[in-house]
Amino acid sequence: MEQASSRFADRMVRGDVFAPDCPSRTIIKHVTSTWGLLALIALRPGTLRFSELRRRVNGVSERMLAQTLQQLEGDGLVLRQSYPVVPPHVEYSLTEIGQEAAVLVEALAEWVQERIPAVLSSRRSGDDQID
Amino acid sequence: MEQASSRFADRMVRGDVFAPDCPSRTIIKHVTSTWGLLALIALRPGTLRFSELRRRVNGVSERMLAQTLQQLEGDGLVLRQSYPVVPPHVEYSLTEIGQEAAVLVEALAEWVQERIPAVLSSRRSGDDQID
Repeated sequence: MEQASSRFADRMVRGDVFAPDCPSRTIIKHVTSTWGLLALIALRPGTLRFSELRRRVNGVSERMLAQTLQQLEGDGLVLRQSYPVVPPHVEYSLTEIGQEAAVLVEALAEWVQERIPAVLSSRRSGDDQID
Repeated sequence: MEQASSRFADRMVRGDVFAPDCPSRTIIKHVTSTWGLLALIALRPGTLRFSELRRRVNGVSERMLAQTLQQLEGDGLVLRQSYPVVPPHVEYSLTEIGQEAAVLVEALAEWVQERIPAVLSSRRSGDDQID
């Protein structure tokens, strides 16, 4: 899998989300998953410690947040910095491309937040609206 | 569930993606799922018949595409128009808020397509890049 991705990267200058084997689909999943999206948005203003980030990303378990951050770190979107102190101190921040991703998913979240009343009222009216 | 959503809508002027019970998270899932995202992008240029849309959204089963379109229609993002002819003729197009959603997810897809080589090379170098 890792090897296939590498071969893909070697011949690739640009992804294609419409191609079933394009790894871009995985990245989209990582940045738009509930916790991925919230972590990116929460990190936009600046570096946070794990516990601060977890408080901000309301409702996530320690395990799920750690896993989410590991994925985003693996994609080069998040930087993990650990300090050898007692008690252990770990900080997370966005890389340059992480900032780019955060801007885009925040725009999407802003739009949904703005439009949710319209979406919910269209759900209630059901088929009535189609004419 | 539907009732809970409606009550939420009544007191809501704006969603909050950080609130665990906010229905905005479901909408984000619908528009960023692989098939939801591709269907929205494919419909941006204009109306398509089901079969044309399925060809464009490469690799989706009939069942999955129908289910995806039903979700997007339920959210008020896609309009389904069926014509009482033989053979049956069904067309799909974006509503106004569907167009808004499509613009945003296409921006995200464009970014991922552009940045995927960087992401893959960061995956290959692994921990080396963190210094």
